[in-house]
Amino acid sequence: MKETIIRVFKKPKLKNPVLLVGLPGIGNVGRLAIGYMASHLKAEKFAELYSPHFFNLVVIHEDRIHMLRQEFYCWKNPKKNGRDLIMLVGDSQSATQEGHYEIAGKILEFVSKLGCEEVITVGGFATGKIAEKPKVYGVPVEEEMTKRYRKCGIDFRVSGKVGTIVGAAGIIPGMAKLYGMHAMALLGETPGFPIHMDPSAAEAVIKVIEKMFGIQIDLSQLHEKVEEMHEFVRKIEEIQREALEEMKKKKAQEELKYIG
Amino acid sequence: MKETIIRVFKKPKLKNPVLLVGLPGIGNVGRLAIGYMASHLKAEKFAELYSPHFFNLVVIHEDRIHMLRQEFYCWKNPKKNGRDLIMLVGDSQSATQEGHYEIAGKILEFVSKLGCEEVITVGGFATGKIAEKPKVYGVPVEEEMTKRYRKCGIDFRVSGKVGTIVGAAGIIPGMAKLYGMHAMALLGETPGFPIHMDPSAAEAVIKVIEKMFGIQIDLSQLHEKVEEMHEFVRKIEEIQREALEEMKKKKAQEELKYIG
Amino acid sequence: MKETIIRVFKKPKLKNPVLLVGLPGIGNVGRLAIGYMASHLKAEKFAELYSPHFFNLVVIHEDRIHMLRQEFYCWKNPKKNGRDLIMLVGDSQSATQEGHYEIAGKILEFVSKLGCEEVITVGGFATGKIAEKPKVYGVPVEEEMTKRYRKCGIDFRVSGKVGTIVGAAGIIPGMAKLYGMHAMALLGETPGFPIHMDPSAAEAVIKVIEKMFGIQIDLSQLHEKVEEMHEFVRKIEEIQREALEEMKKKKAQEELKYIG
Amino acid sequence: MKETIIRVFKKPKLKNPVLLVGLPGIGNVGRLAIGYMASHLKAEKFAELYSPHFFNLVVIHEDRIHMLRQEFYCWKNPKKNGRDLIMLVGDSQSATQEGHYEIAGKILEFVSKLGCEEVITVGGFATGKIAEKPKVYGVPVEEEMTKRYRKCGIDFRVSGKVGTIVGAAGIIPGMAKLYGMHAMALLGETPGFPIHMDPSAAEAVIKVIEKMFGIQIDLSQLHEKVEEMHEFVRKIEEIQREALEEMKKKKAQEELKYIG
Repeated sequence: MKETIIRVFKKPKLKNPVLLVGLPGIGNVGRLAIGYMASHLKAEKFAELYSPHFFNLVVIHEDRIHMLRQEFYCWKNPKKNGRDLIMLVGDSQSATQEGHYEIAGKILEFVSKLGCEEVITVGGFATGKIAEKPKVYGVPVEEEMTKRYRKCGIDFRVSGKVGTIVGAAGIIPGMAKLYGMHAMALLGETPGFPIHMDPSAAEAVIKVIEKMFGIQIDLSQLHEKVEEMHEFVRKIEEIQREALEEMKKKKAQEELKYIG
Repeated sequence: MKETIIRVFKKPKLKNPVLLVGLPGIGNVGRLAIGYMASHLKAEKFAELYSPHFFNLVVIHEDRIHMLRQEFYCWKNPKKNGRDLIMLVGDSQSATQEGHYEIAGKILEFVSKLGCEEVITVGGFATGKIAEKPKVYGVPVEEEMTKRYRKCGIDFRVSGKVGTIVGAAGIIPGMAKLYGMHAMALLGETPGFPIHMDPSAAEAVIKVIEKMFGIQIDLSQLHEKVEEMHEFVRKIEEIQREALEEMKKKKAQEELKYIG
Repeated sequence: MKETIIRVFKKPKLKNPVLLVGLPGIGNVGRLAIGYMASHLKAEKFAELYSPHFFNLVVIHEDRIHMLRQEFYCWKNPKKNGRDLIMLVGDSQSATQEGHYEIAGKILEFVSKLGCEEVITVGGFATGKIAEKPKVYGVPVEEEMTKRYRKCGIDFRVSGKVGTIVGAAGIIPGMAKLYGMHAMALLGETPGFPIHMDPSAAEAVIKVIEKMFGIQIDLSQLHEKVEEMHEFVRKIEEIQREALEEMKKKKAQEELKYIG
Repeated sequence: MKETIIRVFKKPKLKNPVLLVGLPGIGNVGRLAIGYMASHLKAEKFAELYSPHFFNLVVIHEDRIHMLRQEFYCWKNPKKNGRDLIMLVGDSQSATQEGHYEIAGKILEFVSKLGCEEVITVGGFATGKIAEKPKVYGVPVEEEMTKRYRKCGIDFRVSGKVGTIVGAAGIIPGMAKLYGMHAMALLGETPGFPIHMDPSAAEAVIKVIEKMFGIQIDLSQLHEKVEEMHEFVRKIEEIQREALEEMKKKKAQEELKYIG
């Protein structure tokens, strides 16, 4: 695999679709929000993305090898004039500098061919403190999105607050313009503590998305699911940390051992 | 996006054009000088360059996502025998080793097709001390440029003074020869203190360029504009520094969290 | 050489072949087990793999330059209904992040064309302590392999024990699914001490492979051969360590000397 | 420039040519020996190699921009049955891991098309001490070279002495076999002190090459030329060191300044 590939199971016919992206990041806000939405809307997985720019390891999950990937889900809106959703969730962002741009390009090219003309990435906006009622900030590429979603509880005045968006949550909307798409990053306010999943920020974002697209998500299981996931994540993170140290040790060994 | 691309809005017809390059670097001399010139000549933007070798982040500017880029401006010389100018200014140089060569190649190939046969990059030449009257050094690839511009106040005797030119200001003229172009680096003397914009060095360079091409730039607003920019830059730099630390932290987190 | 290449000496006709992969890693379990098998089955080398992602050096072995490589061996099963084996052993894994995926892809594409539909990688599973009777863990990509080999002494319950598999032993089976192959990692329990070859873990793995494919390997020379290899490996490792330090020093020098 | 290119000025017709490679490395033995030979044989430059894998800077030499490169020289042997020589000398090896393989491949492909079937790289073999009469070690890829040059004062018994050859001096002969060429590394014994040019080792290697190809090089100017070069190199190295530190500082600044 020399470059990022997308394995398509089924090409869905979609009605004015919007792409919602939820990948790992600060507070795991994006992954949590979009992953929960995909699961509660019973969205259908129709494609998977693999990349040589993901970490050079596989995860063992329930006694099986799980290759790092990102997954495309689609949801058909039952309402007559409602918009369909494409949801992208995944295990990993790029582990290399250039990979971020390659992966973003593949994603945008792919959904563009499905008729998608709007992209929204979800991420966290770290403040360093716990907010009682987390805000949701919107950072569009152009004026258009501000108009389109001005009545959905999004705070569009971020200047002086955020200076850069690192990784997929910024690169994907930034590049979307090159594909003729409208795009925006939705950032849920989160403390940004390391190794922390923030269901409150995810909830705040989902509530905004409900207003944006006139849909309803049953949020009753979010906190409890996160609690479960949290245990899981905590456990995996310990293993990961060990794995990383192992990897470093192993790499050092390999450097010494390739003639072994 | 697997490689550097140039998005062309309009193919200008140019008269014996010269390319002036001003990218971030020591004292921001190049960016400042060429950016100011493009703005005061009311030059027209006709193309943008994007690269996977730029940093993997976007900048938030005035509540909008701004993808890192370099911009091509053209200015048509109203004088009958005057030369037209192409000006390249940008947010970023390559963040990877190989990227510098890829980006330089794309730029040169592009302007070559526009009939450009001469390239001048502008940069800073760090001395560690503040000069009352900053000198402007010229380092050509071949004899030709020394002859062409010997009466413009350029000091062509740099040996023993500068040993290498790092990044675009050196790679672009170095490679220009492979495209059959004449090329030179113009280096304004600057203290080279970290996080410092040097309008005096930029002014010295612009004065030299005025003589080189028989044009006039109103310099009255340079210092004051820099003062404004300086505030802005200072503020942004703080955010950047935080963002970078965030990025490092986040990267560490991601390394631990890709299963989250 | 811009990408990984496979040099094919001979295209063998194989009967329902399975690929066994043994590359350097924890305890050198894979390399030791599969290398010993290839040698004791008198398997025939039919192809070699070279990659720009291997370390940028060559090894001097018996007064000759030895370029880092991986080698494909095949063994034709004399039993009427027995399966043929393809064995891959090598000096090196990828030294770059992306290289792991490129190399795995080349391997899978190649054996796929030889009619191979099953892939088993062998590695070590580090526990930090010496086991009297090392276990052999199996981590399949899908249910199928668990069924196929449930009576071969493999422990398929790894969850909670291993969190990730780093490098080729994980990436190759992970990617095998994309090529329509069944795949599994076989991990021999090993202390995982640095610079250590573990013949006991290799022996345990070979015994499992004997059951899986109904073949017999004379194990009498394994420990003694390892003892020899161990001396050799130890010696080489010292040289390697020095070479690495040299390399670092040399690299620093080169950075300073490219005009010399 | 996305990959290594060779700019050919003239395709020489050569008689049974051998490629001699002298690039920067330990003691600069290779560069010194082959550079001196090319100059004293008045060999003709017929091609240049440029690569995005060289350092991302240009060198200022005698008030001109000098892009990092490697240069091919040819020398036609006036003797009726004598062999012609191709000599490759250069400023830089690859600055990236994968680049070494790409550059070696380009070189071998190129000389192969010129009818070259034999490759000899020259390097240093660091011992840590000053030898009164430096030995010259030969490490061939195959038996053939040992036979061919057994009476030329080369010590072919290196095992136990050298464990690896890092960079071009090892990768080029290692890969030569893939192009059907015979190949060997010639390593002159040298202390290997940092920032040190070793004319004695270079002299020892040239004397061996004289015997190998029945040619004569006037060595009277080698030491004195090195003395001159040494001054030059020393001076350049200081500048380089500063430039590198500058580069690091500048890079840090750029990281902070790309919005400047």
